[in-house]
Amino acid sequence: MLTYPMNSVKGTSMYDHLYKCIKEDILSGKLESGEKLPSKRTFAKNLGVSVITVENAYSLLASEGYIYSEEKKGYYVAKLDKWIGPEKNTPVPEEKKDIFENNGQINKYKVDLINNIVNYERFPFSTWSKLTRQVLSEQDEGLLRAAPSGGIAQLRESISEYLYNYRGLTVSSDRIVIGSGTEYLYGILVKLTGRDRIYAVEDPGYYKVSRILEDNDVRCVHIAIDEYGMRVDELDKKNADIIHLTPSHHFPTGIVMPIQRRLELLDWAYESEDRYIIEDEYDCEFRYLGKPVQTLSDIDRRGHVIYINTFSKTLAPSFRISYMVLPDRLMERYVDTMSYMSCTVPNLDQYVLAKFIKEGYYERHINRMRVIYRGIRNRFVTAVRNNSTYGKYINIMEENAGLHFLIKVQTLLEDKELIKKAESVGLGIRCLSDYAYDKASVSKHIIIINYSGIREDNIDEAVGLLGEIIEKFHS
Amino acid sequence: MLTYPMNSVKGTSMYDHLYKCIKEDILSGKLESGEKLPSKRTFAKNLGVSVITVENAYSLLASEGYIYSEEKKGYYVAKLDKWIGPEKNTPVPEEKKDIFENNGQINKYKVDLINNIVNYERFPFSTWSKLTRQVLSEQDEGLLRAAPSGGIAQLRESISEYLYNYRGLTVSSDRIVIGSGTEYLYGILVKLTGRDRIYAVEDPGYYKVSRILEDNDVRCVHIAIDEYGMRVDELDKKNADIIHLTPSHHFPTGIVMPIQRRLELLDWAYESEDRYIIEDEYDCEFRYLGKPVQTLSDIDRRGHVIYINTFSKTLAPSFRISYMVLPDRLMERYVDTMSYMSCTVPNLDQYVLAKFIKEGYYERHINRMRVIYRGIRNRFVTAVRNNSTYGKYINIMEENAGLHFLIKVQTLLEDKELIKKAESVGLGIRCLSDYAYDKASVSKHIIIINYSGIREDNIDEAVGLLGEIIEKFHS
Repeated sequence: MLTYPMNSVKGTSMYDHLYKCIKEDILSGKLESGEKLPSKRTFAKNLGVSVITVENAYSLLASEGYIYSEEKKGYYVAKLDKWIGPEKNTPVPEEKKDIFENNGQINKYKVDLINNIVNYERFPFSTWSKLTRQVLSEQDEGLLRAAPSGGIAQLRESISEYLYNYRGLTVSSDRIVIGSGTEYLYGILVKLTGRDRIYAVEDPGYYKVSRILEDNDVRCVHIAIDEYGMRVDELDKKNADIIHLTPSHHFPTGIVMPIQRRLELLDWAYESEDRYIIEDEYDCEFRYLGKPVQTLSDIDRRGHVIYINTFSKTLAPSFRISYMVLPDRLMERYVDTMSYMSCTVPNLDQYVLAKFIKEGYYERHINRMRVIYRGIRNRFVTAVRNNSTYGKYINIMEENAGLHFLIKVQTLLEDKELIKKAESVGLGIRCLSDYAYDKASVSKHIIIINYSGIREDNIDEAVGLLGEIIEKFHS
Repeated sequence: MLTYPMNSVKGTSMYDHLYKCIKEDILSGKLESGEKLPSKRTFAKNLGVSVITVENAYSLLASEGYIYSEEKKGYYVAKLDKWIGPEKNTPVPEEKKDIFENNGQINKYKVDLINNIVNYERFPFSTWSKLTRQVLSEQDEGLLRAAPSGGIAQLRESISEYLYNYRGLTVSSDRIVIGSGTEYLYGILVKLTGRDRIYAVEDPGYYKVSRILEDNDVRCVHIAIDEYGMRVDELDKKNADIIHLTPSHHFPTGIVMPIQRRLELLDWAYESEDRYIIEDEYDCEFRYLGKPVQTLSDIDRRGHVIYINTFSKTLAPSFRISYMVLPDRLMERYVDTMSYMSCTVPNLDQYVLAKFIKEGYYERHINRMRVIYRGIRNRFVTAVRNNSTYGKYINIMEENAGLHFLIKVQTLLEDKELIKKAESVGLGIRCLSDYAYDKASVSKHIIIINYSGIREDNIDEAVGLLGEIIEKFHS
């Protein structure tokens, strides 16, 4: 008769041990399909365990289909003819190169002038920690419940107040949708406006936008910009329905779109009920002179502008909190068709951020960062411009806004080579042509300097590394 | 000559005030397009301010396109003929009914047996707070940098170890992708496998799955289940390519798919390179007897199973952290085509959760919750079954798993009426038919009891409310 050593097994895991022994024998073929198993009572007696133990093991095997019971007869081994037998589990592999390693942008460059980086000494960790503790200790019921689809009310209200006070935008919190990052929100917009629409993006522009849109299976057309921003005449030629714009600080050229072009684009949108402008204010908080330009969203009175912004630049990209302000029509559609989905940002983060804004920390943080960034920018620009060895080969094209500016370089190198040479000395840069769809349309030798990751203590290093490529290869 | 009162304005906001005054006059038409503005020096003298103040105001107006400069001549008001003039900003509206209010599922029912609810006394707030403080005080660089697309390495490794120890799954952390909620991950899967594929979902089943898939513009077919789970013969008839399954605890019937059906479904998937099974283990942690069933992912040796799980059930739905384990082929495709996107879960939450798992808190929390849920379930089932007034009109259909079970009720009411009557007494319930696409295929009068939101102190209330509808309308 079937038997297993049970004496070394203790306590509640007894039935589990028995379950495993029997299962093993079924899988190995030792117990054949159709074979009758011993009755619970006899088996228990034989093994020296309680009937309950056998009962539990049998019922577990039965629930998984390894055995079946016939009324008043007992348990039988199930038919598992197709079973190929599990291979031995291989142990979890040893530490090895992480597939995503280079994706975290860590330590790739000595000086990184490509990515948006927030140095940790600039982040208000202790405030964030304090607010998190407060939120957790208040143990609000809402902290654990699935959040409303658009985000928790407190955060939407905080954002509404912030937009009113600092952007002059009058936006009811009812029109705000919070999501985990701008990339995610673009996906929502595609679902809201329809996958059959044609999206127009700026050329040059932030390449990720068109990539994300295309990954959402919509068609993108690239519209040239002139000195005022996106060219209106190109829109109809390319049958655009929806425009993505960075009017307050065009990426990467830095153009601030003048009021006239804003009005022209709005007029274009007003020509059809279904045309929309996505106004992306990804870095409007970093304007060094005066209040930011009046937004398209504020000028628009007919509900054709979708305002979108992020906390990635002001807090850190790792926070994954963005928001958009939808026109009434789109908001209705959102509530009707998509509010069954949960908000993607964890409630805890939403509560903490709401407090951070409401209690004035956010404003203070931005003001502080603005001073820091302006200081770095000014020192960096001055050091490059006045550099005795290579200052004469460059021309700095700067606006009073954003976290990047452009340098026109006199060089013999093609842009691709320039980047490669820079990389070889540990300097990460991109050129204007990297952000252009129609490469021929943009000037060569224009470097984008994203200085968010430069610290006071490595300005000199950055200036030096730039020099290594400019001086050596100047024309 | 143009003049504005400047004496009441102080400090750095002087130029901003001047900027606003001039802008207002341009917008109102008081300053006409083409009109020449006073020279900086004269204007400054006249206003009693510094030249810098006028200069800043002019340059701001120029950067926004309200005025333009002509070399050696001065500044002129721009042409803004199309400008319709901004309406007066209406103040932020008074507090009103929030558009998402009913979306947060708060206070709708006295007893809610529909939604997955975690009561706050069950959440380890102080541990979470402690770990958050630790993570923030360590100020790791990685906390602020954009995370790798699949999630931070520490969390992927913690999940890998967890899956090995508690689900017997051998999964390298390289195959794990973390995202903000299962709903989000479905969207990723659609992009990975192609929008032209046909998805098969269980009928009855978790209705949100097909809704999310359809919102991602893929075709869904509904496959009937029998007593063992999804019927294999239906799959080819409906040209399915990809299956969504809940084999360890079918929602809502609770069926645990026996090994044989698992093998049959795997065989089906093996017939074509591009067929996949999404194994959704949404509540596998709550199994009350023995270890969970061997997963399809573990049986599969050819890379046709995508494993997906969430922390929504074990922590709280508001945490929005889910993960999936991709077969190598899909992981390669993910890295090639989608790793440019940031992980949607905030890094802070990822670090804290990684610590929570690694330091054993997660296991302890699940064990604790399992005991709590089992206690509630047993007390609730016993109280309902033995209820002297309505116990005889019901039949409890329970499995040893998950956070819900079914009750077959003898009643004269149609399911819709039953739900309505329950709602009128403050009881939230759903019937099996609510989760069926083909309503005719499922039995009537089967109530799903999701007891996650019941507390020790309101079991009696829940039993009583159930009684109010069962007793009154029994057949």
